[in-house]
Amino acid sequence: MTPTSDVLSALARVLESRKAADPHTSYVSTLYAKGLDAILKKIGEETAELIIAAKGCERDALIHEAADLWFHTLVLLAAKGFGPEDVIAELDRRFGLSGLAEKAARSEGKRS
Amino acid sequence: MTPTSDVLSALARVLESRKAADPHTSYVSTLYAKGLDAILKKIGEETAELIIAAKGCERDALIHEAADLWFHTLVLLAAKGFGPEDVIAELDRRFGLSGLAEKAARSEGKRS
Amino acid sequence: MTPTSDVLSALARVLESRKAADPHTSYVSTLYAKGLDAILKKIGEETAELIIAAKGCERDALIHEAADLWFHTLVLLAAKGFGPEDVIAELDRRFGLSGLAEKAARSEGKRS
Amino acid sequence: MTPTSDVLSALARVLESRKAADPHTSYVSTLYAKGLDAILKKIGEETAELIIAAKGCERDALIHEAADLWFHTLVLLAAKGFGPEDVIAELDRRFGLSGLAEKAARSEGKRS
Repeated sequence: MTPTSDVLSALARVLESRKAADPHTSYVSTLYAKGLDAILKKIGEETAELIIAAKGCERDALIHEAADLWFHTLVLLAAKGFGPEDVIAELDRRFGLSGLAEKAARSEGKRS
Repeated sequence: MTPTSDVLSALARVLESRKAADPHTSYVSTLYAKGLDAILKKIGEETAELIIAAKGCERDALIHEAADLWFHTLVLLAAKGFGPEDVIAELDRRFGLSGLAEKAARSEGKRS
Repeated sequence: MTPTSDVLSALARVLESRKAADPHTSYVSTLYAKGLDAILKKIGEETAELIIAAKGCERDALIHEAADLWFHTLVLLAAKGFGPEDVIAELDRRFGLSGLAEKAARSEGKRS
Repeated sequence: MTPTSDVLSALARVLESRKAADPHTSYVSTLYAKGLDAILKKIGEETAELIIAAKGCERDALIHEAADLWFHTLVLLAAKGFGPEDVIAELDRRFGLSGLAEKAARSEGKRS
């Protein structure tokens, strides 16, 4: 299985490549061309949709809307010159997660 | 370096463990105890803060608020029995990212 | 000048009349036909736009977005069987505004 | 009954008077002292709460949250030097509501 980090990094590379693309060739390049405020409006809209989905009972809708919100956050980060690794490094810094992840990896190593 | 996926998974495990904790022992266990609506309100608030930060010029504020929003999304997912891997699998499905990630890994392998 | 309350009440009557209209005849009747979630998504989007406008310097944009947000709140209220007078009565109840308004009207009467 | 417009205008006058007040004397003067971003965060939070309430079935919660959202919009307007009459004039301009309101007043006059 491809690690999830590689998936987010691959998505970040796709978003980066769309910056140079013709505005009419894709949803994301159109969004970049419309500018920052258009991206932020989408983030507001996606948050509303996530809250609506969370108040419902459909598993797929929740995951779908969470993916939409993360996707548009990544578009915003790319537009500002950042990527998912910046957000994840910040979460890591707050919770000391690298240490926990290494410990988990070691204990999995022992088990296998 | 610990892969970013491991960081998100480690955070998901922390969030999972807080579910069983005494409501007064941590911010997250208090949030769980308050219930779904309290988590959703935080997501609405964090989105407003991300939009505000994005309209400003401070790099750190943007990353800080994006991390806050992703963090509270992960709390919501955990409360509903899901994790970051569900969101990332959905993004992967949409964009065929696993294929891109493998191709990138192969071409990096060739280069090294 | 027509009092502002009459303007809000007139708008509420327009919104009420659109409920029975063919879904394709107006923006609002289309929105009703799409259902509650579509209205709530618009409210999330309009809030994001208001925050964006407030971070800018353009007077017209701020008023425009505030009007958009109030308008969609009124659509939500109408969809649920309420109107602006319910919201205003609640604000009145909280702040004892009727008393203040009467006092202001009396002191204006004295002045004239 | 005090017209609703007078209630909104009375509230606007209260909000205006709080601008000059000591930051510790009321919720609103504290909010002004915290600045624009604090007001905008509240608007984001109140929108999330309105969406949550609208997905529920409680009449009072919906009106309560709509009043909270309008209230914080009025705080924003006051902080920027505007009032409810600006928003209502914009709605009037869009929908030609003054004309409708006058017509309604005339036909009520005939009936009485």
